[in-house]
Amino acid sequence: MADQAADERLRLLIERIERLEEEKKGIGDDIKDVYLEAKSAGYDPKAMRQVIRIRKMKPDDRKEMEAILDVYLTALGIA
Amino acid sequence: MADQAADERLRLLIERIERLEEEKKGIGDDIKDVYLEAKSAGYDPKAMRQVIRIRKMKPDDRKEMEAILDVYLTALGIA
Repeated sequence: MADQAADERLRLLIERIERLEEEKKGIGDDIKDVYLEAKSAGYDPKAMRQVIRIRKMKPDDRKEMEAILDVYLTALGIA
Repeated sequence: MADQAADERLRLLIERIERLEEEKKGIGDDIKDVYLEAKSAGYDPKAMRQVIRIRKMKPDDRKEMEAILDVYLTALGIA
């Protein structure tokens, strides 16, 4: 690849990533807006995040995680 | 709000967030793909990430960051 063509290719790759990062940031902002909307409707955002984390897990993984969590909390005397 | 309507509203909010998280993840995957493409074209992804970080900064902020970095590297004897 000629130097100039390589430079141009690099520029285009960088710009593609920057555009995608912008889009990703935009969606992140949309997510924040939904949490804000939920909060002003009286829902607890922290509990909602926990719900979303749990819905992502397989039932077995969730049971395992809860069992481990229980052991740790007991170990730390906060069960 | 009746309980059922509140439950439905919560469900819709959660589902909106889940859809947006999916989209965000998809864009994250697209970004990874561009880095992979760049890598197979011979570019160094780590240096590209650094370029993108630098392009995001104002020139003054960049100078300041570099000055501080220099102080830290000297302090740790790796300058």
